[in-house]
Amino acid sequence: MQTTINMETVKVEKWLNWLSCFGATKNDGVTRLLYDDSWKTAQLALKEKMVDVGLQASFDSIGNLFGRLEGTEIKEKTILTGSHIDTVVDGGKYDGAYGVIASLLAVKYLYEHYGFPKKTIEVVSLCEEEGSRFPLAFWGSGSITGKYKLEDSKELKDASSIPFHTAMELAGFPPSNQSAARDDIDSFIEVHIEQGAVLEKEKQSVGIVTHIVGQRRFNIKIIGESNHAGTTPMSYRKDSMHIASEFIAYAMNKVKEIEESLVATVGKLTVSPNVPNVIPNEVVFTLDVRHHQEDILDQYCAKIFSYFESICLEKGAGLDISQWVNVKPVKMDENLIDTADYVLQGLSLPYKKMISGAGHDSQMFGTFCPTALLFVPSQKGISHSPLEFTKIEDLKNGVIVLIKLLHKLAY
Amino acid sequence: MQTTINMETVKVEKWLNWLSCFGATKNDGVTRLLYDDSWKTAQLALKEKMVDVGLQASFDSIGNLFGRLEGTEIKEKTILTGSHIDTVVDGGKYDGAYGVIASLLAVKYLYEHYGFPKKTIEVVSLCEEEGSRFPLAFWGSGSITGKYKLEDSKELKDASSIPFHTAMELAGFPPSNQSAARDDIDSFIEVHIEQGAVLEKEKQSVGIVTHIVGQRRFNIKIIGESNHAGTTPMSYRKDSMHIASEFIAYAMNKVKEIEESLVATVGKLTVSPNVPNVIPNEVVFTLDVRHHQEDILDQYCAKIFSYFESICLEKGAGLDISQWVNVKPVKMDENLIDTADYVLQGLSLPYKKMISGAGHDSQMFGTFCPTALLFVPSQKGISHSPLEFTKIEDLKNGVIVLIKLLHKLAY
Repeated sequence: MQTTINMETVKVEKWLNWLSCFGATKNDGVTRLLYDDSWKTAQLALKEKMVDVGLQASFDSIGNLFGRLEGTEIKEKTILTGSHIDTVVDGGKYDGAYGVIASLLAVKYLYEHYGFPKKTIEVVSLCEEEGSRFPLAFWGSGSITGKYKLEDSKELKDASSIPFHTAMELAGFPPSNQSAARDDIDSFIEVHIEQGAVLEKEKQSVGIVTHIVGQRRFNIKIIGESNHAGTTPMSYRKDSMHIASEFIAYAMNKVKEIEESLVATVGKLTVSPNVPNVIPNEVVFTLDVRHHQEDILDQYCAKIFSYFESICLEKGAGLDISQWVNVKPVKMDENLIDTADYVLQGLSLPYKKMISGAGHDSQMFGTFCPTALLFVPSQKGISHSPLEFTKIEDLKNGVIVLIKLLHKLAY
Repeated sequence: MQTTINMETVKVEKWLNWLSCFGATKNDGVTRLLYDDSWKTAQLALKEKMVDVGLQASFDSIGNLFGRLEGTEIKEKTILTGSHIDTVVDGGKYDGAYGVIASLLAVKYLYEHYGFPKKTIEVVSLCEEEGSRFPLAFWGSGSITGKYKLEDSKELKDASSIPFHTAMELAGFPPSNQSAARDDIDSFIEVHIEQGAVLEKEKQSVGIVTHIVGQRRFNIKIIGESNHAGTTPMSYRKDSMHIASEFIAYAMNKVKEIEESLVATVGKLTVSPNVPNVIPNEVVFTLDVRHHQEDILDQYCAKIFSYFESICLEKGAGLDISQWVNVKPVKMDENLIDTADYVLQGLSLPYKKMISGAGHDSQMFGTFCPTALLFVPSQKGISHSPLEFTKIEDLKNGVIVLIKLLHKLAY
């Protein structure tokens, strides 16, 4: 292929703005929840775009949208590329949507310049990733990869008590026996905004993701004893706030001793009775821990929980640790990483190999088929907000890399 | 006087139970708020009791109730003894009420056994101490000691928007020009439940209070930066929860290095946005610090705030410290302490000199006239709750000490 891609014809900003009109909010954000009207209109409009581009467009039984460019030599296996169409409430224009538009524009460019590929390529607009309407995330990619079955969604309801299957029916996807699982996926390629500030801070244009982190989340409850703040000497206290502060400081400081890319966050904390002049009897907080190696997560959790237990034993306080999230780390495909690396070396763009600290559809595909995930910068790392922003140049760079990568894989 | 007091005639439990019927709640607690119906009925009933006992009973202009036993030699100066009649919402039977009943029973006993004293004694049922109806505490003792004027309460409203002065009028105390301030108080003697667990834990029957602590309360706000819990490396974070945990752990641990009886409490803490997978941008917490020496409070606050400032500077986070309570420590009268000490040495009761970590009416009197405050044990230190409890034996001991002390001072 030509070394230089003529990006004059690749209107990524225009197409992204067009897609962000479906579900636009008054804050200049986007709310497009699984199976709602904005979601439905957007998917139908995307289907038309796919047809305009020259792709064979079709929905599966649950609302994933595919635009197929059939290979001249290998038809039975498909290189799938895309991301998700749904957003969080009042989210940004880029999260998910950029990946769908980038894939569509890349395939459009390739078709216009090189005709049909040797290997079949399909652009996918996955129906759901965020988990923002129903308490279930990765519905689109999870169904294609066979991790979710229709019955997994049967009992779920949204905040207005609308059942999941009613929502499907209203959107034009009545629950059916036809499975959304596929066995013809050769590989999955996703481009996404970073949703972090690493690329921006390090002045990199593109990130090649090597791993998506594993996530563990815990609720930690400390049961002390309420008492009068004035009449209880320090030595008589079982102050759950004091114990919590020791725990959190220890947990945060221990991170850097374990491994550089380990992260831990206490995002939510509640105090009882939460009154200035009463020693708190109970503090409950969440702990979110992420790393791309299970053994690092094991090591960290064992270290801090053993400390928590020893302190509670010493102070005579109660401790209850319950885990409510346990997502395993996922490795991206080494051959695809090498190919992306090769493509990027040929472009004069600064890039880096990196870990994804957030979950993505690539996480579902990563244990199912060879998968590649590429990042473009997010301004200030802001995401899930109307303030989400990526510079046009960066958006274009992502499409260029994708064009080169798909060309290499499919032509 | 006789060494042994015949407590058969001193029905402290019966009288306390009788008083607790005014404002009794379904939880076996008491709600008697300034100027409400239960309060009014209780004060009028107490007035009758005072008359029955042989005292000259009268209200002042704001609803403090006095029962006077005039001295045969010194009439112009009064030994005042009592406590407050009001409670918190669903409070206990003992806080305040015990002090009123103990004083009334002690004076009854003295009058029955020894007739009129040389010095005038007055039993007082102070109208308000808790600050539980209007945002103002110590209204009774503060008015007698001239610290509050009528106009200080003029703008105040209760939770139902009833103005303070309307409540006064409805209770039969229409605001008038007649001041409640008195210049004839010789001394003030109060018996109160400890509201802490020190006497119980140390198996002491009586506490002689030497000081009432000073109290400082602060709101401390840490302004960090919200970010994604997964995509933000630890070194990029301005995690206000992490900073708060370091502050609280430091503040709590520093206490014991400064002085044994210093206490500090973080009772209330709020996190923003308080979501498990978002690094908190803001944490606000209260800090309550108490000690009986101003220089110790100064030293502690300077130490921890300088640490807070250095950490925020280092982390590039914002810090806002605002003080909203500043009550000075109050020393009880040394002569009265010595007299109480002498009296207690003559009884075969274990007792200790101690600091009061809670505020009491004695705090208002302590800077106005010689004042003594005596404690009896509180079971498990529980107070401001229907579970508040003091054993009959301890209640009786408090009355015995008061009889002996008043006899020594007035006969």
